[in-house]
Amino acid sequence: MTDKQERRGRRGRSARREARTQNVPSSTAPYIKRQIPLTELLSEEGLATIEANADSLLQEIGIEFREDDEAIELWKESGADIDGERVRFPKGLLQSLIATAPRSFTQHARNPERNVEIGGDAIVFAPVYGPPFVSDLDEGRRYGTIKDFQNFAKLTYMSPYLHHAGGTLCEPVDLPVNKRHYDMVYSHIKYSDKPFMGSVTAPQRAKDSVRMAEIVFGADFVDQNTVMLNLINVNSPMVYDATMLGALKVYARHNQACVVSPFILAGAMSPVTAAGTLSQILAEAMAGIALTQLIRPGVPVVFGAFVSSISMQSGAPTFGTPEGTLLLNGASQLARRMNIPFRSGGSFTSSKVPDAQSAQESAQSILATVLSGTNFVLHAAGWMEGGLCSSYEKLVMDMDQLGMMHVLAKGIDLSEQSQAMDALREVGPGGHFLGAQHTQRHFESAFYRSTIADNNSYEQWDIDGRSDASERANVKWKEMLRRYEPPYIDEAIDESLLAFIAERKAAFPDSNF
Amino acid sequence: MTDKQERRGRRGRSARREARTQNVPSSTAPYIKRQIPLTELLSEEGLATIEANADSLLQEIGIEFREDDEAIELWKESGADIDGERVRFPKGLLQSLIATAPRSFTQHARNPERNVEIGGDAIVFAPVYGPPFVSDLDEGRRYGTIKDFQNFAKLTYMSPYLHHAGGTLCEPVDLPVNKRHYDMVYSHIKYSDKPFMGSVTAPQRAKDSVRMAEIVFGADFVDQNTVMLNLINVNSPMVYDATMLGALKVYARHNQACVVSPFILAGAMSPVTAAGTLSQILAEAMAGIALTQLIRPGVPVVFGAFVSSISMQSGAPTFGTPEGTLLLNGASQLARRMNIPFRSGGSFTSSKVPDAQSAQESAQSILATVLSGTNFVLHAAGWMEGGLCSSYEKLVMDMDQLGMMHVLAKGIDLSEQSQAMDALREVGPGGHFLGAQHTQRHFESAFYRSTIADNNSYEQWDIDGRSDASERANVKWKEMLRRYEPPYIDEAIDESLLAFIAERKAAFPDSNF
Repeated sequence: MTDKQERRGRRGRSARREARTQNVPSSTAPYIKRQIPLTELLSEEGLATIEANADSLLQEIGIEFREDDEAIELWKESGADIDGERVRFPKGLLQSLIATAPRSFTQHARNPERNVEIGGDAIVFAPVYGPPFVSDLDEGRRYGTIKDFQNFAKLTYMSPYLHHAGGTLCEPVDLPVNKRHYDMVYSHIKYSDKPFMGSVTAPQRAKDSVRMAEIVFGADFVDQNTVMLNLINVNSPMVYDATMLGALKVYARHNQACVVSPFILAGAMSPVTAAGTLSQILAEAMAGIALTQLIRPGVPVVFGAFVSSISMQSGAPTFGTPEGTLLLNGASQLARRMNIPFRSGGSFTSSKVPDAQSAQESAQSILATVLSGTNFVLHAAGWMEGGLCSSYEKLVMDMDQLGMMHVLAKGIDLSEQSQAMDALREVGPGGHFLGAQHTQRHFESAFYRSTIADNNSYEQWDIDGRSDASERANVKWKEMLRRYEPPYIDEAIDESLLAFIAERKAAFPDSNF
Repeated sequence: MTDKQERRGRRGRSARREARTQNVPSSTAPYIKRQIPLTELLSEEGLATIEANADSLLQEIGIEFREDDEAIELWKESGADIDGERVRFPKGLLQSLIATAPRSFTQHARNPERNVEIGGDAIVFAPVYGPPFVSDLDEGRRYGTIKDFQNFAKLTYMSPYLHHAGGTLCEPVDLPVNKRHYDMVYSHIKYSDKPFMGSVTAPQRAKDSVRMAEIVFGADFVDQNTVMLNLINVNSPMVYDATMLGALKVYARHNQACVVSPFILAGAMSPVTAAGTLSQILAEAMAGIALTQLIRPGVPVVFGAFVSSISMQSGAPTFGTPEGTLLLNGASQLARRMNIPFRSGGSFTSSKVPDAQSAQESAQSILATVLSGTNFVLHAAGWMEGGLCSSYEKLVMDMDQLGMMHVLAKGIDLSEQSQAMDALREVGPGGHFLGAQHTQRHFESAFYRSTIADNNSYEQWDIDGRSDASERANVKWKEMLRRYEPPYIDEAIDESLLAFIAERKAAFPDSNF
């Protein structure tokens, strides 16, 4: 055994011990293997209608690929009809291209124990992505900083229920736009050992992300394995812009997985009805997914669908709505029929504070997400204010909910132990089960223990200070940050990363574009 | 047209007009007809295992029917094995008795437009049942009074999303225990015209409820139709007590439907595991359901399951848990296989305030309730503090959630209009749908409009006073009570009810037992 292996082994054992008492990530569940049947709300006939409509859209209207000659050239060679930036697709073309994409793949983490499977029965939870603001009960809402980013990275690392480090946990607006991706990617590597996402805001930033991954994993490994997921939003309706195309091409070429996501607020970026919106989502996703396969056949890719609705009064985005649930569920069925891993959902809300609205909308959306069998769930924790704000309290409240989803996804255990006929015979009519041997045996593992809920009597709650859930969450995240310990990282790798970043940062001036 | 008909006709038109603007109940949806497929988490094999175990429990251990010679005599005649108060059931006996119960039935309301179907694809929402306390943001938590009861009756009447008036909206502790049922049943009749529940706390109170129903509907009608649902809790594990048996017999004899409900906090009243708990629930429910058929073959009856878990640390009940979801879903499948309408679920929480915990637990439980295809949902709105408190704010927050459930249960509309191909062709790549003709046509009905959620920008929310959801709910219920108008009631019926109550109240002294 080398020193390094021994060191990792020791950490492994001590981490598992701590996991039981201190809520640091346990190595027993790197992701959820769903054991319950899927909830599927659309009939075979409905799905066929939507697929036929998507085919019509792709043939008649097509998709625009803007300011990217290379993409147009690739489409031309593939047999698509080209009209300037507009590409129309003969029936069956996209399906045949998509056929080379894997139905499931492994995203590697720098700690192999945290590798995740994307696709099939796997469900992988990742935190909120993208907000410019952060908030907590003490300081309120303000612009995010790299310090906040690091805090969210640490909290995400510590949760046994977030399997993935995510990407833009918040925008660190204290750093220049053109250089902050170095600090973001580095923070994921340094403060966590879970799988993470690359930068997509410019092709060069995608290249930098790949280079940093190569420093960590080795260039050959990166070329043959997927170590980053990368969020490619469609500029819905039916447009891929140059920025997203640039990033998509870099990642696909390097065997890294794009999450091709129509970004839809129904009523604004798509029709005001679910059936119409689903046809559009399918058409948009098919085009982007097929493009990754044109660039590198066989590269892993994810069918994404960021989808909600708007208020027809104000135009404001709405979340955790029944329409959002129906759209998410329908899109999950469409992705499964295409044999492509599916990304959607999360713990969504448009509330400005971690109140009842926030929790109600988030609970509706995350339960629907899990029941739909979503494979990769970005925004699973910390999302607030329609995605404009990452909330510290909401992050730990959502983590608690994700813990519950782990139990739900296991379904009902039908083992002889769980059938409990011995307990039923022991207790009999009018007895109680608290003292039964069976209960004692299962005491530790019986029920999920919420870290946020107060189930005490009114009187005890009164004595304890009458806290609400957000106040308890406030205590919780501070306590977690106090006991954070960084995961092991090879010193040589860390130094190489820092050297690369320093060199790159020095090579060109700061800019906020 | 008689005066009365004309009066009802006018009220009907004006009520429909108001419904659009003022949130008084619309006559268009007396209950939900579920159009989405069921979420069913247990396999055929799992269900068969649980059924076999329930059969074993019924044969080997049996059920106790306490202090009720008549029930024991009925069981004896049916062929069951009697051992004092313990009754054991030969295999197949209960199934053959249960076969006479209807798989679906109508509960009549005094306004026929509000009749509800119980069973099949129907979902009927009723408010919280049983709490001794009430709370609101202004006055905090205190014992409930008849005034509170009436307020909850009025608010329930006004909601288009509560189909049923419910029963014990709160305990009116300002009235003597032995007489308060008159005021409760009368309040349901007077302040609402939705279907309601009868008293079950003593056989005489059940008889009084039947008598009051006969005054409203006529004795012959009541004998031939179901006008009351009545909550019969099993004293789990495996005991029916004299009070519940007494009420069950009165209602079954009068053709009124009992909701036979094992009352389970798993780990205390049942094994700490889901599979064991489900076998017990099934055995308990089968015995009570069969007893109603022994008393009056063909009488409507509902398979109930009040089921949650406890904290293994404190023994406190917990709600909105993943274990509760699994149990609810499993029980719904067992009831459907028995062809009996199913009651369970609700908007549960153990929180003491309408905070994020309250909303999270309630959202999880109500979504699971609806997806499981639960037919009658008691506690669908207003439940707080593990059922010890009826909350004014929570009531209206839950009503809003129930509105969302109405949209969800409709599923995805696949009509040509909804496919929206015209809109997709009109807008094309890079456009937006806000101004599309299709969007304009569907503007009014497109998306559910929450009455509680704030979807505005942070800046607008800040200007508006930075309210949280509970504060908006506080404004909402007061506004509703201000514009409450009682439904039409025949004056002669009202006078007969009041005369009956006055006579009965004078006949015996007040008592708090």
